[in-house]
Amino acid sequence: MTTLNPLIESKVDVLIIGAGPAGLMCANALASAGVDVRIIDKRAVGVAAGQADGIQPRTIEVLQSYGLAEPLIRIGAHFPRASFWNPGPNGGIVRTQRTPSIFSPTARYPYLITRHQGGIESLFHGSMEAKGLHVQRSTIPTAIQLSQVESELRDPKANPVKVTLKRLDLEEDDIEVVHAKFVLGADGAHSWVRNVLGIKLEGDNTDSIWGVLDVYPETDFPDSRNWTFIHSHNGTLMNIPREGDMMRYYIQLSEDPDFVDPKTRRVNKARANPDRLMETAAKIFQPYSLKMLGEPEWWTIYVIGQRVAQKFSIEDRIFIAGDACHTHSPKAGQGMNASMNDSHNLAWKLAHVLRGWADLSLLKTYEFERLKFARDLIDFDRKWSKLFTGKPRTEANEDGISHEEAFQTFSGFSSGVGVRYEASAIVAKQHQPCAAKLVVGERMIPHVFVQAADIRAVNIHDVMPSDTRFKVLVFAGNVADKAALARVRALADKLDAPKSFVHRYGQGDYHKVFDILCICAGSKDEVDFIDVPQMLRPHWSKVLLDDTDMHGREGGGGFAAYGIDPKAGAIVVVRPDGYVGMVAPYERLEDISTYFGGFMVEKSG
Amino acid sequence: MTTLNPLIESKVDVLIIGAGPAGLMCANALASAGVDVRIIDKRAVGVAAGQADGIQPRTIEVLQSYGLAEPLIRIGAHFPRASFWNPGPNGGIVRTQRTPSIFSPTARYPYLITRHQGGIESLFHGSMEAKGLHVQRSTIPTAIQLSQVESELRDPKANPVKVTLKRLDLEEDDIEVVHAKFVLGADGAHSWVRNVLGIKLEGDNTDSIWGVLDVYPETDFPDSRNWTFIHSHNGTLMNIPREGDMMRYYIQLSEDPDFVDPKTRRVNKARANPDRLMETAAKIFQPYSLKMLGEPEWWTIYVIGQRVAQKFSIEDRIFIAGDACHTHSPKAGQGMNASMNDSHNLAWKLAHVLRGWADLSLLKTYEFERLKFARDLIDFDRKWSKLFTGKPRTEANEDGISHEEAFQTFSGFSSGVGVRYEASAIVAKQHQPCAAKLVVGERMIPHVFVQAADIRAVNIHDVMPSDTRFKVLVFAGNVADKAALARVRALADKLDAPKSFVHRYGQGDYHKVFDILCICAGSKDEVDFIDVPQMLRPHWSKVLLDDTDMHGREGGGGFAAYGIDPKAGAIVVVRPDGYVGMVAPYERLEDISTYFGGFMVEKSG
Ligand SMILES: Cc1cc2nc3c(=O)[nH]c(=O)nc-3n(C[C@H](O)[C@H](O)[C@H](O)COP(=O)(O)OP(=O)(O)OC[C@H]3O[C@@H](n4cnc5c(N)ncnc54)[C@H](O)[C@@H]3O)c2cc1C
Ligand SMILES: Cc1cc2nc3c(=O)[nH]c(=O)nc-3n(C[C@H](O)[C@H](O)[C@H](O)COP(=O)(O)OP(=O)(O)OC[C@H]3O[C@@H](n4cnc5c(N)ncnc54)[C@H](O)[C@@H]3O)c2cc1C
Repeated sequence: MTTLNPLIESKVDVLIIGAGPAGLMCANALASAGVDVRIIDKRAVGVAAGQADGIQPRTIEVLQSYGLAEPLIRIGAHFPRASFWNPGPNGGIVRTQRTPSIFSPTARYPYLITRHQGGIESLFHGSMEAKGLHVQRSTIPTAIQLSQVESELRDPKANPVKVTLKRLDLEEDDIEVVHAKFVLGADGAHSWVRNVLGIKLEGDNTDSIWGVLDVYPETDFPDSRNWTFIHSHNGTLMNIPREGDMMRYYIQLSEDPDFVDPKTRRVNKARANPDRLMETAAKIFQPYSLKMLGEPEWWTIYVIGQRVAQKFSIEDRIFIAGDACHTHSPKAGQGMNASMNDSHNLAWKLAHVLRGWADLSLLKTYEFERLKFARDLIDFDRKWSKLFTGKPRTEANEDGISHEEAFQTFSGFSSGVGVRYEASAIVAKQHQPCAAKLVVGERMIPHVFVQAADIRAVNIHDVMPSDTRFKVLVFAGNVADKAALARVRALADKLDAPKSFVHRYGQGDYHKVFDILCICAGSKDEVDFIDVPQMLRPHWSKVLLDDTDMHGREGGGGFAAYGIDPKAGAIVVVRPDGYVGMVAPYERLEDISTYFGGFMVEKSG
Repeated sequence: MTTLNPLIESKVDVLIIGAGPAGLMCANALASAGVDVRIIDKRAVGVAAGQADGIQPRTIEVLQSYGLAEPLIRIGAHFPRASFWNPGPNGGIVRTQRTPSIFSPTARYPYLITRHQGGIESLFHGSMEAKGLHVQRSTIPTAIQLSQVESELRDPKANPVKVTLKRLDLEEDDIEVVHAKFVLGADGAHSWVRNVLGIKLEGDNTDSIWGVLDVYPETDFPDSRNWTFIHSHNGTLMNIPREGDMMRYYIQLSEDPDFVDPKTRRVNKARANPDRLMETAAKIFQPYSLKMLGEPEWWTIYVIGQRVAQKFSIEDRIFIAGDACHTHSPKAGQGMNASMNDSHNLAWKLAHVLRGWADLSLLKTYEFERLKFARDLIDFDRKWSKLFTGKPRTEANEDGISHEEAFQTFSGFSSGVGVRYEASAIVAKQHQPCAAKLVVGERMIPHVFVQAADIRAVNIHDVMPSDTRFKVLVFAGNVADKAALARVRALADKLDAPKSFVHRYGQGDYHKVFDILCICAGSKDEVDFIDVPQMLRPHWSKVLLDDTDMHGREGGGGFAAYGIDPKAGAIVVVRPDGYVGMVAPYERLEDISTYFGGFMVEKSG
């Protein structure tokens, strides 16, 4: 670690404050994109155990797009099933239902995964460090100042944010002044950045209080390894399977006068200890036995409100993300997921602006997209929490929807797959019907195709990494058919014309900006990858077939799944973050040009 | 590296001579099993490029059982399709057929993978080094001596093999005398160990000669990324896709007087250079264009006969494996595969004997199983080579089987999945009908089940790692059915009785020797994992269901695939190397006891 000299002034393109999931996702994405980025954190060491743990299907897809999902899938606990228990007629608890924990039919990974927050963070550390970026620890900002000079604010090359940094691990009062182009405050629920900028939180005052306990239990409870919601005469508990044989219990304490003073609603710290939490849990599990093996791995009393920041950015120069923007109950396991997806949304936009490819206005779409999401999330969280923390459903109280219905209704949220961004500069919905099932503004639907050159089965997600490029997917018909081939050739010629968006916004070397893929409807016996015009196959792996593999195990049905007529074809533009930005028929290439013209800087090549 | 002192004498349980694929597979397996093992190699550094490259489906399964397949699958080239080209009517070549490159319907990975030999070896290096084992390089044996004292040879605790080692990288004539319990000669086709022990090779004198060229080509040939066999008027070539955009061409030179003197059959070294090889390849590819981009990655002239060693062991104390035992043409890509599978077969047997669990006689099954395999392989190789190197099929010469038929016929070999070990102490076939499709002596058939506790879909291969344990799979009926449950309970009681094989051969802690799994026929809605008697579920993950996952994407049909009647059930014993050792009905537990009694040492626990 370098010493901070009081006279040091430095420059950086992006300064990230806070190295939790939100900050690290951004730092890794920017480092991978070659952006000049720095990340600091006040903590001397990373999270060793506990805190957030649930990873949703969509977040797994996102991590996979950065090449980080494999260790998570290997090490984490998976729970594809949810289970519901209610008070039994003779005391104790009885199972009332089991459902899939995820209903979203298009989820590539149709289950939740848990892994302690430090384990998730270490995925990013490993990847960042390979690119030479380390978290600078024991460092806090003490002042932040945004230039008021309009021309500076509008100049993408200017460094209008001045942040003063202080080292906590040095005796002297060493400070450093950093001049940044952009700053991200990813400094958690009590965000210093948010507070100092005067951004208000909106939402409930009523905080809910949870005891959280990570333990290795001995139990004869049959549904331990499921996502289990228990309502009992003795309280409410959520049972979360964890990596290895670990378990997490979320125990609602808000109503428990033993832990919480009913008047002040303050936690009685003296009474709150893991043995007491375990005791409460054991009562809830009755008649099943529950004992703790050894010491608890981690525990906390976790007080949380449902709040959203009024805004996520100041002048599109300083942003906040993650818990700094929104906090919610842990019931639906949103914390880490929403946080990482915030900065996943932001990172490519920063990269495009910093490279001079996109206009500063692109950054407005961050708040536009993520603030709406956060508000919807809080709404969902309220309904969801009510459903699971309300009075147990009894024979007398049978109205309200069932757990299964709730899971189905809310699956878009609990899987993260249902996020839909509204129309904006980067979401153009006018030609939706030409790919009816690929909802513009939602994430690209995963599907298995085969590579035409080697008939290797690949999920289309795997050929669309988060590499800051727009993916231009040309859905061609059966190019073995002469008429279809002629249409595709004509399209390729138009795409390669100097006025095409590929060249206009190609920034001198369009392969850096656009990744072009061609998906053909023909069969592997008919279509050779070299049949496809060269423009549509920058590499042999870029031609896919909507057909099964050599053994009929996987693949096929992609055009139908996407609602694309193979005769007509379609062009699908997928944003660098994996969301469908636009779909268009072959005849409306100029509309795609207009789309890119709305936020990109023209520089042909 | 340590200096070898002339006075040094040392002891080791297993000394491995040669750190190619055969030696490394053994070293890694033994190190993982905690065996005292040492591995030396004469080379100062590992293989950097080239040499063998083809990995068969069965070898991928084996690597996966050691946790090593993932990087290979990620980095290697896959080729699920084979393609055949013959001379065209007007010169040039025309495609005559395309087929799956692997027909074996049960292959978990139904394709071939290529990766340069050094890349494969590095999988083992990484894994071994994590266990503290490094290859001792620049070291050769100069003498090997086996004790003639019968009592010593028969004493599993004795170190009857004396090997003198010499360092090649030291000035002084440092030598070390190693006293080993067992020695493995995995020192390649020109094996010093084999020669010094006087083990003869049997087989052809006619060597075939191949030019091998690893290049990045520029070509419009449509089938580059397939396993492609080309017969042309200008010669014969095999086209192998390699990692990234690399290609390997095997060019048959035996008939080419430009490279090989027709009288002496010696390679004309002066003429053999990569440009000449490329020139020959380009002629064969006509009318398609072929150019080399940059320098070749690797090339060689590879002279190879089809030979098998007379025996694979001396007194079951010194063994040979890999190319030291058998050499064959590269046409079917067997080299590395047969070699790694030799020592995969040997490693667990050594571990069991060294731990005092099994009788020395267990080691006899190594030669019994692998010598027969090697002979069959050479037979196959002869037929296969003839098929692909014989005169091109013409209209006049239409007899002989087609390529597709050949691929189907030989798929057991070319996939490695068809290996079947004959009846022996560790292969007991008497109760075959009770699991009619799980052929005793063949590798366990992979299949997807769901874990009863969490409904996570798992391939049964993934819960049967190569950890030196015998897997005892109890196929139970639907334990939600009372009668079925009663039968399973009775079986569990018998298994847990003091006279049961589990306890008799359990070596004081049977979980170290036997991994017990229970596979139930019931549905996930009916069966809870705790319904299964405790004896059959040492861990919650050990109860599997023959049902689909929560989304109906995977799983189900396992009893049918294995030919097991769910009403009757069956017990399947899978050897530590993944081969089915025995199947038996519930009523014949004592036959399983006899099976283990045939090679294991009794020590109850
Ligand atoms: C004690 C605790 C327990 C939790 N328990 C749960 C749980 O049981 N279940 C659940 O779902 N979620 C839980 N959460 C919430 C969950 O951790 C967050 O939702 C998630 O981590 C959000 O990620 P983030 O990156 O936005 O914020 P955080 O993970 O909070 O990361 C913020 C980072 O910023 C750093 N930081 C803060 N202030 C400064 C500053 N002034 N200068 C420099 N660095 C700063 C912090 O050290 C931290 O590393 C818990 C959080 C905490 C703090
Ligand atoms: C130059 C070359 C080219 C090849 N090309 C191909 C190809 O194109 N396609 C193909 O399928 N196969 C090819 N092979 C064969 C392939 O490499 C083998 O089938 C495969 O590696 C067998 O593995 P192995 O471990 O049995 O032997 P090897 O990989 O040969 O390993 C033997 C090891 O023992 C070491 N050794 C040898 N003698 C001693 C000694 N006296 N003391 C200590 N160490 C010793 C060697 O250095 C080597 O590391 C080639 C082999 C060679 C040598």
